[in-house]
Amino acid sequence: MIGIDTSFFGEDLVKSTTDLKSKASDALESIINENCVGSEWTGWFDWPKRQGFALAKEIHTYKEKIDVAYDTVVVIGIGGSYLGTRAVCDALKHDFEFLQTSEKDRKKHIVYAGHNLSEAGLIELLDALDQLKPIVNVISKSGTTTEPSVAFRVLRNYMEKRFGKEEANQRIVATTDKEKGVLRKVADEASWKTFVVPDDVGGRFSVLTAVGLLPLALAGYNINALLEGADIVFDELSKDNRLNEDHPILTYAAARLAAWESGKRMEVLAYGEPKFHSLVEWWKQLFGESEGKDGLGLFPAGLASTTDLHSLGQYLQDGHRSMIETFLYVEKQGSQDNKQVERRLHVPALGHDDDGLGYLENRYIDEVNKGALDATKVAHHDGGVPCLQLTIPGRDEKSIGALFAFFETACAVSGLILGVNPFDQPGVETYKKNLFGLMGKPGFEEMGQSLRKRL
Amino acid sequence: MIGIDTSFFGEDLVKSTTDLKSKASDALESIINENCVGSEWTGWFDWPKRQGFALAKEIHTYKEKIDVAYDTVVVIGIGGSYLGTRAVCDALKHDFEFLQTSEKDRKKHIVYAGHNLSEAGLIELLDALDQLKPIVNVISKSGTTTEPSVAFRVLRNYMEKRFGKEEANQRIVATTDKEKGVLRKVADEASWKTFVVPDDVGGRFSVLTAVGLLPLALAGYNINALLEGADIVFDELSKDNRLNEDHPILTYAAARLAAWESGKRMEVLAYGEPKFHSLVEWWKQLFGESEGKDGLGLFPAGLASTTDLHSLGQYLQDGHRSMIETFLYVEKQGSQDNKQVERRLHVPALGHDDDGLGYLENRYIDEVNKGALDATKVAHHDGGVPCLQLTIPGRDEKSIGALFAFFETACAVSGLILGVNPFDQPGVETYKKNLFGLMGKPGFEEMGQSLRKRL
Repeated sequence: MIGIDTSFFGEDLVKSTTDLKSKASDALESIINENCVGSEWTGWFDWPKRQGFALAKEIHTYKEKIDVAYDTVVVIGIGGSYLGTRAVCDALKHDFEFLQTSEKDRKKHIVYAGHNLSEAGLIELLDALDQLKPIVNVISKSGTTTEPSVAFRVLRNYMEKRFGKEEANQRIVATTDKEKGVLRKVADEASWKTFVVPDDVGGRFSVLTAVGLLPLALAGYNINALLEGADIVFDELSKDNRLNEDHPILTYAAARLAAWESGKRMEVLAYGEPKFHSLVEWWKQLFGESEGKDGLGLFPAGLASTTDLHSLGQYLQDGHRSMIETFLYVEKQGSQDNKQVERRLHVPALGHDDDGLGYLENRYIDEVNKGALDATKVAHHDGGVPCLQLTIPGRDEKSIGALFAFFETACAVSGLILGVNPFDQPGVETYKKNLFGLMGKPGFEEMGQSLRKRL
Repeated sequence: MIGIDTSFFGEDLVKSTTDLKSKASDALESIINENCVGSEWTGWFDWPKRQGFALAKEIHTYKEKIDVAYDTVVVIGIGGSYLGTRAVCDALKHDFEFLQTSEKDRKKHIVYAGHNLSEAGLIELLDALDQLKPIVNVISKSGTTTEPSVAFRVLRNYMEKRFGKEEANQRIVATTDKEKGVLRKVADEASWKTFVVPDDVGGRFSVLTAVGLLPLALAGYNINALLEGADIVFDELSKDNRLNEDHPILTYAAARLAAWESGKRMEVLAYGEPKFHSLVEWWKQLFGESEGKDGLGLFPAGLASTTDLHSLGQYLQDGHRSMIETFLYVEKQGSQDNKQVERRLHVPALGHDDDGLGYLENRYIDEVNKGALDATKVAHHDGGVPCLQLTIPGRDEKSIGALFAFFETACAVSGLILGVNPFDQPGVETYKKNLFGLMGKPGFEEMGQSLRKRL
């Protein structure tokens, strides 16, 4: 479903990639057989069939029973608790959603809180909510991470004041641990509807669990198509019950290791559709958090084409040669089941050519956009950057679901053959604990004292 | 006006920084004396006094005479032609501007086109404009860059169809070369109001010229305060007519070279206020395009705190040790002349502590946010990342103007002492020409043929 092209990756790197493929396929086998490093965290693999489709039904049943009117889902979460949702939503929603007043075909809004500590941002979110009819989905496995906890305290207070306690409780749904933790306890006491963050799926691999499916379904996205896309990719990995050793996932993982071993230290993911910005943010977390440990890992960076060709382009073309670049192509502007596909725009004919653009007249703008991606791939390759190409079928739920499965599997394989545990994130704790200390959280007072002396 | 703190930069790097400061101050002197490499491009230096304040008057005079009603400025431009404007606008505007229906205190909208080739994006921008009353500001020195040219052809067509040719001409203003180029010719023929892109200021240094000042003024931002902030910084650089050799700008430039010489290959700019996202995008262009050449340059990356601590944080803490990190602190939430300052939000007291956040009750959220920046600086330093700290007074035009002058000067100095011409961008041309070839622009047909064979 997702293709890879290594024509511009460079002869030497293509050769090392081929050599590393059996290593990659061994790693994939160890994931499937659940005997890899960190195998207790491989619940995301083959998730749609094992649990996803059943969960989607459960979510739709809940959605049908909601008996308060809402037009907005407030997602409270940080990192993997919101990036997957945002990736799908930003890829598919109207750029000016709040100006689209017609109800016809309009998705509900998703807005985000608890993914930072911006005071101004939270004040302005409350302004916005005053104009909207919100449901709040708080998402946290433990309930102790500072950012979502602070935002949820503010939002819960807001909801109770605006709607009264009873209706507020109907408008709050929690996605958290099945039995442990602060949020589970609070949710049970308040009788909020809850969904579960599975024990064997880490945050950055959790988009197809309730973490992502619930808010996306509530806002009207097609979560079954997301799951179907992912399912196709997981199915492709075994052919006639044998591992598919030619699968693009293995090529991509092997290519990344080949790049690392040849001295590359960064992967730039270039995308021609700016709506994929958040999808690339999701990818950055996935790879950065999975591989950036023990002094290892390609640093993940995004490049919005053509926007960033006029900012990072010069560096990519001529700067320090430390990166590979992966180009994300989208075959079609929209999907066949997506009405957006009917809306096209070409360079208009003006009856004169005073701007010198006559040679582009009546051609679709997307054709020029694809040309720019090709032009850049060749330019950067010629400037010494090894370039890969990934192609997805369209800009729709099914393609994005497939891409989730593709990158999750490739990332796990890539991390394993790099020699790290791709499923933990011990480094994220350091700042969290420092923050507890500096803010005087009970139990962290001494640490706080010694930190304050250093500042 | 802008402070620097090197306490967490590491002893060795602080020493090399001190050693490199005289080199940096020589470079600054060569900019002031206009005998540096690329000195024909140093018009941005001391710009407010030399031309900026006079230009601001001219812009305000034009603004007063506009006799069509408008609520939106469409900025058509790419790279330096829009990033500075967007940096200011996104830092200061309401996050949900289209939901703020009250006219009181509301700025006009700025929307962007021509900074990419997204067909869906342009279609949806036209949807939005149907709900708005736009003025179009097309910004291009030459008028031949594909992205803004395509967008402008679409928008010009839209404006003429919607308002009729005569009113459309009143609603279009061009910022371009003073005499040469396609856009100058078209603008003069149509009698559009025009402003000038100066010959001695490159795109990424142009925010305080008409390129940035015009759309910002039209939308209601305080461009005099922007210029005043920059002016203060330029003034600080000479004390009693002697170069101020202790200025933070020289420390910052020297620190970057010290990092490069010690083997660092990336600078991550971490910012605690998400509204500074576009300001950091502006910074990425400034440094990436100025230094990323001849195989040199620190790769510029952004880190939105605390959001990205849950994506790139793990890599920063424990991944490959190739980066330095610069933390951008903001002293106050707003400025004294900014009404936003009156609006504050603290962690509410709930009368119980079921979420375990009691220790944060009644503290401003911004206090926690600053704590997180401190917590992260210490954590990443302890993980082996040399950390710098820059502090600006507030989130207002004056502070941002100062930051523009700070970074522009530091970038020029930094590039000069790295040994490159910080004012050219030869690498950006490669993809542009490839695109002309692939699209069949007259004069590029042969190149297009040979490119197509390779694809």
